[in-house]
This record gives sequence, structure tokens and C-alpha cells, in this order.
Amino acid sequence: MPINSARTLEVELRVRDYECDMGHVVNNAVYLNYLEHGRHELLGSMGIQFGELAKRGIFLVVTRIEADFKASLTSGETFIVRTELQRKGRLRLQFLQQIQRSPDGQVMLSALVTGTALNAHGRPEIPAELEGVLGL
Amino acid sequence: MPINSARTLEVELRVRDYECDMGHVVNNAVYLNYLEHGRHELLGSMGIQFGELAKRGIFLVVTRIEADFKASLTSGETFIVRTELQRKGRLRLQFLQQIQRSPDGQVMLSALVTGTALNAHGRPEIPAELEGVLGL
Amino acid sequence: MPINSARTLEVELRVRDYECDMGHVVNNAVYLNYLEHGRHELLGSMGIQFGELAKRGIFLVVTRIEADFKASLTSGETFIVRTELQRKGRLRLQFLQQIQRSPDGQVMLSALVTGTALNAHGRPEIPAELEGVLGL
Amino acid sequence: MPINSARTLEVELRVRDYECDMGHVVNNAVYLNYLEHGRHELLGSMGIQFGELAKRGIFLVVTRIEADFKASLTSGETFIVRTELQRKGRLRLQFLQQIQRSPDGQVMLSALVTGTALNAHGRPEIPAELEGVLGL
Repeated sequence: MPINSARTLEVELRVRDYECDMGHVVNNAVYLNYLEHGRHELLGSMGIQFGELAKRGIFLVVTRIEADFKASLTSGETFIVRTELQRKGRLRLQFLQQIQRSPDGQVMLSALVTGTALNAHGRPEIPAELEGVLGL
Repeated sequence: MPINSARTLEVELRVRDYECDMGHVVNNAVYLNYLEHGRHELLGSMGIQFGELAKRGIFLVVTRIEADFKASLTSGETFIVRTELQRKGRLRLQFLQQIQRSPDGQVMLSALVTGTALNAHGRPEIPAELEGVLGL
Repeated sequence: MPINSARTLEVELRVRDYECDMGHVVNNAVYLNYLEHGRHELLGSMGIQFGELAKRGIFLVVTRIEADFKASLTSGETFIVRTELQRKGRLRLQFLQQIQRSPDGQVMLSALVTGTALNAHGRPEIPAELEGVLGL
Repeated sequence: MPINSARTLEVELRVRDYECDMGHVVNNAVYLNYLEHGRHELLGSMGIQFGELAKRGIFLVVTRIEADFKASLTSGETFIVRTELQRKGRLRLQFLQQIQRSPDGQVMLSALVTGTALNAHGRPEIPAELEGVLGL
């Protein structure tokens, strides 16, 4: 299996009504929930569990988000969260993410999310076990 | 009163425990909730109600968010959401936003949020009544 | 098809990390999100769209919730939301709901949710079109 | 100060637009957020921090919620969450809670929330330090 395929994941989700606001569209903060879920599912597929790491004093955190909201998802729609992970220097992880409505494939949002890991002292540090699976 | 002061608002909030995730810090999507609340309070202070507009087919939407997460708010902390509104061309509103922990004033997040208004046909259009209060 | 089967629906969902709180379990309010999604999916399968009704001034509202939290869902777990709809008198709908962890089937939560419809004047009223599909 | 006053707390909050759903009212699950915040603020005023306990393997959990939704809060409204704590037998805490709109005082929701503490083995156990502050 090419390394590349291990670093990309697509998750299909469906809008839930409580995620829609008074404008009858998915509220902007909820897209960040979707994006986080996509990133955690990708990391999980690589053997990295956010919750397990947190219990051991390793915190994966977001340091920057750039997101372009191109169109609005509404009640009942189904969509794909596509996440691609890239290493960025020694300490940063970069996630290219896109939300596409299915089945027409329209891009609703594209985002670039940068993160790192913090050790128990709150300092950026990619722990050895992450280095392994990140394999870079 | 200088026009400028009418376009800046500070709102003080307190972290609620349900907003914190397994890492014992405010989840990244929740900051977007805080930012939206700051923007809507600022717009409200100018006589612009998001919900009222939505009922009449005018939808204020976010088109782009850039946010730098500098430090993490945790359970029980109090913070200020500072929002400054600028007109950006004919169709865009730009919000400079910052979240500062009180009382030490540490900047936890800074963001640039761009938005517009959509008419009932889904096309960007700043309605006349907004033009008035935006006063630009 | 027996009428009964048209009024019961099971939806399978998966816990998302942002739904977990500092206790590393799904926060109690999030179960209400799951339950609402289960109810709306059931109503949707009967041709009743919460959002569409709201646009026309018919509001489906919850009037009472009784929920027993028996065990806690945690990060990454998959579960079934089972919803059964019963008519209760002229004006009330009653939803028997249960959340079961899959694949072991453990009951995590059971709930009885009562609701009604409000007309544009805020008065309880099951509109004719609902009477039809409720078929009671 | 009478013991009783130490066990009751009122918190004033304001509806945030993202808490409102397509029906232009606060979504039913959000009331549980408000109620949790009221309980945690009351516990905090007694020296009990949910997050701190969780870090030490003591988990405060909700076991049952009964809530009557009497009227709906909408965008921009301010309200009081009133919480009264009672001991219920050896292992249970009971919270009588009410949400009242200010300034007219209309009761929007009343609830009875039962909880307990779980030790690191997941068994109900009120730890010694809680016994002290609960003072019963």
C-alpha cells in the first residue's frame, strides 16, 4: 500500500438538525466539529487516539485554522470530510481538509489546519511513538 | 461619539465545563461559538439582529475564517471577546477578533473573520438597512 | 407492512471526540442531541421534516424528557439510537427511545420524550398533514 | 449563614444565537448545557471542581434527568438558572433546577437531576472530601 493512502481518509456524515441554526444551515462552528472528527478518524486509522494520548499527558492541539466557507450544508444533507495529513517541519502537522456534499460533489468548505503535540509541560514535542507512525 | 467606538465591542464570558474536551481545555470549535457570539453582540449593538434578518430572508454568513490558537482556555476561566468591524469593499464585512483571558490579559486566540449577507436567492447583497447602520 | 414497523427506527452513530467531556465520556447534553437526531430521522422517514415545518410556522417542540443514564459512551464507540413513536391523546406525541452500544448491545440510556406541535400563535395543534401521516 | 443558602445558587446567562435552532428557539439539548453549568457553578462555590476531580479519578455523573419544557427561550433573552442541591440517601445527589426568563420571571423549564460520583473502578462512591463539603 502506498504511504500516501495511509495519510488520507474520507468520512461520510449526515447533517443533524440540531447542527443547523436560525438561518436553516449548518452553523459555522459545527464545520470545525466535522473537521476535527475527520482528523481524529484519520489519526485513529494510523493508531493514534486523541483521548488515549491525553490520558498520558500528550495533547494534540490546533494552532491555526484557515477555512473558506463556499456554500452551506442544510438539514438532511450527506457529505464527505476528506482529510490529508502532511508533516510540516519538525514540530507541526498540517491537515488539508475539504467538505464535499454528496452526491453532487460540490465543495462546501476547504480548510488548512495546523497542529502540534504538547507535552505535559505544555511545550510542543512530537513524541517518539507519533514519530513512528508519522513515519517521516 | 467617534464612529470607531460604535464598531468595536468587548464581551466578557466564562468557560463552561461542557465546552472543555478530553484534553481539559476548551475545544477548538467552541472558540468559533465565542467569536460568533462576539460578532452578533456587536451587530446587535448596532441594531442588526441575525435572527430577525433570517426571518426576512437576509442571511449573514461567514465566508472565511483565519484563526491563530495561541494558548488554551480551561475550566472556570473568564475571558474577553473583542470584536472590531470593518467594511471590506462593497460586499464584505471583516471582523478582527481577539480572545483574551482576564484578568492577566493573555491573548488566547486572534482571528480574522470575513462575512457577507446573502439575499433570498443566495446572492451576496448588503441590504439597504445594513448600509445605513454600517454607515460607510 | 404492519403499521407498527413504520413508527420505529434505528439509527447507528459513532461517538465523535468533541462530544466527550473532561471525564472522557459523552457529555450528558449530547445524548439529547443523539435522541433528537433519532426522532427527526424517524419523522423524516414518515415524510415529516422539522425544518420544512418550521419554515411554514409549525414548530415541533419537546415538552418533557425523562432520561435514565445507565452507562457512559466513550470515544470511538458505535451505538444504536432506537426510537418508537406513539400518539398520546389528541395533542401529544410520545417517543420511547433507547441508546444501545454496539456490538455488545448494552443499554446506555433509556428515555421517554413527549412533544407536541405549536402553530404560528404558539398554541399546541397537530396540523392536518401530520394527522395524516401519524394515521391515528 | 444558614446551611441552606450554601446549597442554592443562581447564575444569570444570556442566549447566544448559535444555541438557537431552525425553530428560532434554544434547542432542547442546550438547556441541559445550561443546567450542567448551573450545577457545576454551585458545586464550584462549595469547593468542588468537576475537572479537578476527573483528573484524580473521581467522576461526577448524571444518572437521571426529568425536565419539563414550559416555554422557549429565544435569541438575545437573558435568564436565571437556579440550582438547589439535596443529598438523597448515601450515594445520590439531587439537583432541583429551574430556568426563569429575566426580567419577567417566567419559568421556562423545571428539572430534577439526579447524580452520583463514580470511583476509578466505575462504582458509585461519594469520596470523603465530598462528604465533608456536602456536610450531611
